[in-house]
Amino acid sequence: MDRFDNWVPPVIEHGVMTRWCWMVYHPTNLRLGRKTDIGAFTFINALYGVEIGEGVQIGGGCLIYSISTIGNLTGKVVLEAGCMIGAHSTIMPGVTVGRGAIVGAHSFVNKDVPAGWLALGVPAKPVRRIEGK
Amino acid sequence: MDRFDNWVPPVIEHGVMTRWCWMVYHPTNLRLGRKTDIGAFTFINALYGVEIGEGVQIGGGCLIYSISTIGNLTGKVVLEAGCMIGAHSTIMPGVTVGRGAIVGAHSFVNKDVPAGWLALGVPAKPVRRIEGK
Amino acid sequence: MDRFDNWVPPVIEHGVMTRWCWMVYHPTNLRLGRKTDIGAFTFINALYGVEIGEGVQIGGGCLIYSISTIGNLTGKVVLEAGCMIGAHSTIMPGVTVGRGAIVGAHSFVNKDVPAGWLALGVPAKPVRRIEGK
Repeated sequence: MDRFDNWVPPVIEHGVMTRWCWMVYHPTNLRLGRKTDIGAFTFINALYGVEIGEGVQIGGGCLIYSISTIGNLTGKVVLEAGCMIGAHSTIMPGVTVGRGAIVGAHSFVNKDVPAGWLALGVPAKPVRRIEGK
Repeated sequence: MDRFDNWVPPVIEHGVMTRWCWMVYHPTNLRLGRKTDIGAFTFINALYGVEIGEGVQIGGGCLIYSISTIGNLTGKVVLEAGCMIGAHSTIMPGVTVGRGAIVGAHSFVNKDVPAGWLALGVPAKPVRRIEGK
Repeated sequence: MDRFDNWVPPVIEHGVMTRWCWMVYHPTNLRLGRKTDIGAFTFINALYGVEIGEGVQIGGGCLIYSISTIGNLTGKVVLEAGCMIGAHSTIMPGVTVGRGAIVGAHSFVNKDVPAGWLALGVPAKPVRRIEGK
């Protein structure tokens, strides 16, 4: 049995901690796939759209921004199915993280990450293809 | 019209999340300028004084410390008018970030940043003068 | 007089901010020593055990994980007496930080840190023995 067999969509209200202690602004513009997992103290601003695919895992303390007042950036964020975002990372507006990609912990992601690649750093750069992807 | 035309000072209580989900300790020692913008999950400890000038932008997940028990450091933090502090950054006691300076995301700032400069890294170092500043 | 002379154990409930704005999951598996100090917006998941020795200082915005769903990692975290964990750091499952060691701010710690050493970086590496330790 899989820990996600009993996965149910979380209840999400604008600016209110979910039961798992992460928070979303503008949840009407968030599309959250099944069997996703989001860590404590992660913040998502979905004003310009955030799509999180099935099985995506997001660590704790992450910032997922479809809008950044610093730099006047806006744009939909897409986290494709099965990708993983390490703890303490920031995803900037307009970024797509491809299917099955991994973003290392503590990364600042302001460019797309190709499907199946590991990317990390500040700013994040792809470092290698993940075996078996 | 400017998004800050209708700016009103936030209501701030010691240790309680503001409406925008940032938090201040010792708010009586915080001077907050007009048209400032502070991101979610940012924490400010103003015990030894924090001054935030007009139009300053602070990203999400920042830590602004006028006191750090690690290292026994204390000192007023000054963020001068128009400077920007990127997401996930830490500002240590006694630091001044100069007018119009930019601190890159994910930086650890334990020395002053000159006005009009971009600084970044852990620890943050000035990397170049910002054009037009 | 020491600021910790009047130290009393904090009241900790699963998934609820303490009075000092840090949060623990599974507090029954947390052993918290005397005169410890934990910063705001720090999160501890103690499901597989977290031991925090006497006098340990943990900065704000830290993530202390005895379980990480990313990588399927589990294991007790031990922070030995007198060690210090800088702000915005992540401690991964199974890690021991030795007595009196210091973890620099913004570090990602996935290996043990020897007693009396300073370690830092992403991932954190020991850089030097601390004088007098």
